[in-house]
Amino acid sequence: MNRINQLFHTKYPIVQAGMIWCSGWRLASAVSNAGALGLIGAGSMYPQVLREHIVKCKAATQHPFGVNIPLLYPDIEKLMEIVVEEGVKIVFTSAGNPASWTRILKERGIERVVHVVSSAKFAKKAEDAGCDAIVAEGFEAGGHNGREETTTFCLLPSVTGTVKIPVLAAGGIASGAAMLAAFALGAEGVQVGSRFVASIESSAHDLFKQKVTSLNEGETQLTLKELTPVRMIKNEFFREVEAAYAEKISKEELAKLLGRGRAKRGMFEGNMEEGELEIGQIAATIRNILSASEIIEQMIDEFYEAKKKVSLISFTSSNFQ
Amino acid sequence: MNRINQLFHTKYPIVQAGMIWCSGWRLASAVSNAGALGLIGAGSMYPQVLREHIVKCKAATQHPFGVNIPLLYPDIEKLMEIVVEEGVKIVFTSAGNPASWTRILKERGIERVVHVVSSAKFAKKAEDAGCDAIVAEGFEAGGHNGREETTTFCLLPSVTGTVKIPVLAAGGIASGAAMLAAFALGAEGVQVGSRFVASIESSAHDLFKQKVTSLNEGETQLTLKELTPVRMIKNEFFREVEAAYAEKISKEELAKLLGRGRAKRGMFEGNMEEGELEIGQIAATIRNILSASEIIEQMIDEFYEAKKKVSLISFTSSNFQ
Repeated sequence: MNRINQLFHTKYPIVQAGMIWCSGWRLASAVSNAGALGLIGAGSMYPQVLREHIVKCKAATQHPFGVNIPLLYPDIEKLMEIVVEEGVKIVFTSAGNPASWTRILKERGIERVVHVVSSAKFAKKAEDAGCDAIVAEGFEAGGHNGREETTTFCLLPSVTGTVKIPVLAAGGIASGAAMLAAFALGAEGVQVGSRFVASIESSAHDLFKQKVTSLNEGETQLTLKELTPVRMIKNEFFREVEAAYAEKISKEELAKLLGRGRAKRGMFEGNMEEGELEIGQIAATIRNILSASEIIEQMIDEFYEAKKKVSLISFTSSNFQ
Repeated sequence: MNRINQLFHTKYPIVQAGMIWCSGWRLASAVSNAGALGLIGAGSMYPQVLREHIVKCKAATQHPFGVNIPLLYPDIEKLMEIVVEEGVKIVFTSAGNPASWTRILKERGIERVVHVVSSAKFAKKAEDAGCDAIVAEGFEAGGHNGREETTTFCLLPSVTGTVKIPVLAAGGIASGAAMLAAFALGAEGVQVGSRFVASIESSAHDLFKQKVTSLNEGETQLTLKELTPVRMIKNEFFREVEAAYAEKISKEELAKLLGRGRAKRGMFEGNMEEGELEIGQIAATIRNILSASEIIEQMIDEFYEAKKKVSLISFTSSNFQ
């Protein structure tokens, strides 16, 4: 029995990542209806917008879904009030200290709290804080990342060797083969972001979806480490940031250059050059826009196919000289 | 039948990476005697030193072994002459264009030529140049890396989807579980570096081996991108490099700061602060110094154990609500 399926009452241990401007009620409910766990990404939502998405998600699925809340969000108290009031049962927290919210959420009726980490050290903190599972997110992931740059291949053995609660792997996972690889490294589930950006139900702008499905290797880079590290597509805005770094820009000037609403302008409004476009390295392997249910079915098919393939491996019949 | 075992007449599709100051004839022959493929790392050797290592390696093992030669090496012509004269049958090339040497080596009697790449684009070039296999090396690897920072999780599906020749995964692999993960992502073999640095037969200084086996997450970083990108331990020399970057040092000044013999001073002579210490991120999970044969046996045991574990995974008996 898979512990992630047990925790979330899902059919498949796949979680759709909460992603700003991409994962509203439409994507989250489609994922949950397909047997995985959908998350509403609260990071880009004003409190009343989040409430609206939760209400619509409840109407659109009978299955469990969750909300991802970055703990650095200024309206954090208000967002937490709303998830409690609306009876959300699953909350994923990220970008902050899990000790500050996990117990409070549990006391207020949130049944499952999961924290996103990028190191074994923070995985331990999350476990100690009472989290039910953790997401171990590697350097290759889109969105916000750790400063230590530990990749999924290296992070998973560290984290699964450190905590007893189940670990969801994130970063680099857009196929069932990658899901199997994550399981080989000790994960019991996966959190998938980029693949769901390129879904029919994603609220990303069509131009962003097209951009994501035409990216090549090396066309994203982790940057803005002085603010919050984020993996971005190398567009005009990225080049402005690079030029600013070359001029030894201060942290304050960098924040000013980023300004407000950059991510919205890019991912939601479709400005591919001036916007901040967040996506994972694995986008270089994503070539089509599918429905959420097609993505999940395909991943599960690929998972079993890869499992069958590796099950046949044996090194006994070699021509060792 | 595993294609890597077929190519190299090995028992296990594990290649010990050619690593400067760590992999001489002692390590290479021990690895080959244990059923994997040992490589002499020519990158740190003067031509006559390389010849000596090849001669000793031939005396120490009846099994196939190879030589790794970085193509940017100034004495490259001389090194190639020596591998041909000494009847070496397997050459791994890296850090350069595979088109310049692959055919020449084959014409001169080298049976197997393998090239190390960090992108699908160069994997294709290596295949077109006539290489028998490629090593796909991710961002997390120690030593010299690509500028594009593609991680093993993302690089493997790209590369295995691009070339028909077999792919060896490198970067982040120090266990049999990681080996299985690499196979799930399409690799047919693995190249292992850091784990063999911490071997009894490695020629690394004992202080370096101890350093490697006590590293924590986040204690290495890819740097010196303007020269040749290299993943280094964050020691005093690394901090000097960081300080120099903060002062906008020129490429020439950077080369001067690096100077000559930095890597030797650190990895071979044991100066842990002034030396350049190259190692992969996965060192954070390596905690003991074993013999080469113990490392290989352990990896194979872990591989079968992980294979058995994933073979039991099924998502049919869930409590989907």
